[in-house]
Amino acid sequence: MIQEFYKEMTGKTSVIRQFFAYGMERAKELGPDSVYNFSIGNPSVPAPQSFTDAMEDLLKNTDPVKLHGYSPSLGLDSTREAIADSLNRRFGMDYKKDHIFPTTGAAGAIAHAIRCIAGEGDEVITFAPYFPEYIPYVTGCGASLKVVPADISSFQINFVKFEEMLNPNVAAVLINSPNNPSGIVYTTATIDKLADILRAKEKKYGHDIYLITDEPYREIVFAGTDSPFISKHYDNSICCYSFSKSLSLPGERIGYVAVNPKASGSELIVPMCGQISRFTGHNCPPSIIQLAVERVIDETSDLSIYERNATLLYDALTDIGYSCVKPGGTFYMFPKAPIDDANIFCWTGAKELGLMTVPGDSFECPGHFRISYCVPTEQIEKAIPLFKELYNKFAS
Amino acid sequence: MIQEFYKEMTGKTSVIRQFFAYGMERAKELGPDSVYNFSIGNPSVPAPQSFTDAMEDLLKNTDPVKLHGYSPSLGLDSTREAIADSLNRRFGMDYKKDHIFPTTGAAGAIAHAIRCIAGEGDEVITFAPYFPEYIPYVTGCGASLKVVPADISSFQINFVKFEEMLNPNVAAVLINSPNNPSGIVYTTATIDKLADILRAKEKKYGHDIYLITDEPYREIVFAGTDSPFISKHYDNSICCYSFSKSLSLPGERIGYVAVNPKASGSELIVPMCGQISRFTGHNCPPSIIQLAVERVIDETSDLSIYERNATLLYDALTDIGYSCVKPGGTFYMFPKAPIDDANIFCWTGAKELGLMTVPGDSFECPGHFRISYCVPTEQIEKAIPLFKELYNKFAS
Repeated sequence: MIQEFYKEMTGKTSVIRQFFAYGMERAKELGPDSVYNFSIGNPSVPAPQSFTDAMEDLLKNTDPVKLHGYSPSLGLDSTREAIADSLNRRFGMDYKKDHIFPTTGAAGAIAHAIRCIAGEGDEVITFAPYFPEYIPYVTGCGASLKVVPADISSFQINFVKFEEMLNPNVAAVLINSPNNPSGIVYTTATIDKLADILRAKEKKYGHDIYLITDEPYREIVFAGTDSPFISKHYDNSICCYSFSKSLSLPGERIGYVAVNPKASGSELIVPMCGQISRFTGHNCPPSIIQLAVERVIDETSDLSIYERNATLLYDALTDIGYSCVKPGGTFYMFPKAPIDDANIFCWTGAKELGLMTVPGDSFECPGHFRISYCVPTEQIEKAIPLFKELYNKFAS
Repeated sequence: MIQEFYKEMTGKTSVIRQFFAYGMERAKELGPDSVYNFSIGNPSVPAPQSFTDAMEDLLKNTDPVKLHGYSPSLGLDSTREAIADSLNRRFGMDYKKDHIFPTTGAAGAIAHAIRCIAGEGDEVITFAPYFPEYIPYVTGCGASLKVVPADISSFQINFVKFEEMLNPNVAAVLINSPNNPSGIVYTTATIDKLADILRAKEKKYGHDIYLITDEPYREIVFAGTDSPFISKHYDNSICCYSFSKSLSLPGERIGYVAVNPKASGSELIVPMCGQISRFTGHNCPPSIIQLAVERVIDETSDLSIYERNATLLYDALTDIGYSCVKPGGTFYMFPKAPIDDANIFCWTGAKELGLMTVPGDSFECPGHFRISYCVPTEQIEKAIPLFKELYNKFAS
């Protein structure tokens, strides 16, 4: 009675993981200096000392029975309040603790948000390039994911195609800004236009269309980039956040769902998330991590290296001749490969030189490749001549 | 597009939570000495100092980028190995790390195990009295939960009814021993008989029937109790464990699935759990908690208070006149109410005296009530005269 559905999926690891694993393997063989592992989005800067201090203080000075006790099924009140207050302070919102549901990272947040809104027969629209794990989150609740092709000139939204694809079955639109893999940030103009279209279609179809915003890179935005707080621009919105990147805690699995207080059914969605958790055995994120994050709620790791790396790499690549939309945040860049098939470029060309990058096909945007530059700056410097060699090999 | 299925469930909190919340409320009004909260299974003894030391040492002496980094999607290798080794050492099993999948507690473990084995149209059998959260775990994958009525004389298995209910649609049998709420432990004779029946039915039906064992109370077994390691007695078994009770860490969400190396498809089930995680956004338990538990893998909190409380309470209740099957472990006891309707007994009688207990109806075993005695011994001592007053009121 082994379930064939999941069985058939085993053994198929993501291309990202394949490159990462290969890079680790090669580094063992050739030494770490011969491999440039730009395949995975693991933060390269430490969590802030204040987070470590908070953890140590909790361990030293809290009754362990209380500290490690069950958190209520909707999360610790104090943590939910701290998250709401911080969002209100920073973005002029009006969240109450009842709009906040702590989750095991953005993965947990998106999986819950989508299950609240979409079911059998519904469609969820997202925009290429996009994070491939959206597929299980959406199909897992019986809905289907529809992908709007990329606007490769800017990686903003391809509105012509988007409007063509909207139809009465669309229950939700799922966006990711700052974006993995392109590194771009949706501008205020993009968000406002998206919001206008959605409001018009809600009226036309006679039902709500929720905007689910995947925002783990919200805190990694470079100087001069227009980066609106999306939920301020559209009422029926659910913000999905993770502290993985801002506090460099990807392994500790902590994030949240923040339901727009102005959304239809805003008072329902968090209790529904609590119910959804009962089916999947998700439960709350760990108590001690909730409590520690609560104490450093407005802080981040020193994220400045990502902008330094972005500038260095972007300038070098475009000097070499690569075509690339300039990233406005994150720690990703998504240049065009100098040949049509980015798979050939990544799997044979780049890989042979020890450069682990990911073909854009994984993000439904062929012809491009993703560089994760969450690495020491020195590695970027050393890799630049190799990117040049690679370009010359393929562009000729 | 709010999903009605989950929406309709909101607002319905479990009876256990209702009693717990009422008890907390009353304690605020009347002072904590006037309320005896025997409603919830939150460990009352601290995590071992060695766990706290492990956490502090990890925070002080590990590179935070490594410490808080992503764990592989099937969990940290070192943690999986430590769990396998510990089980092998203690129970003479032959687990490899590839049979171990770390989860967010037993909830995560059971939800994953069932999704591996059961789907639309399948049946999962469990035995009353049982933990009501089994319902969402089972229905969440499209299967249906069938409940064998309790053998109230011993709370071992009612085999006559069980054999009647077995049919070719049964994909899995889910047991919980030591048992919440009865406190009894299935004997070797019970497990062997169960295993014999299942093997015979596997042959008859021509397919596997998996035994999923929910074992969070494995370490809380009282002197002289026969407590077999269940997976040793049946090959097609999947053990679901939680460190919540043994290490007093319920809020930190850490447990595991251990697939019997001799099970059909034993090499498949853990990778399938990894795939299931992608759909629910479960991911791994937090890295630091995996690493800390790994260091104290063979330890437990000082659990002796539970046996002291059990003896004290059992002797007193049976002296008073209550009928009760003697618990062999856990921190629960499940006496018969002195009237037929345990709801009236708990909701009016016991509650009025400040005794928060849970009617057996919640566990599909009416006429009984659950006492969670994971409280300071002093509270048991003070509550005994109240249990006497209550008995006299209803038994007359």
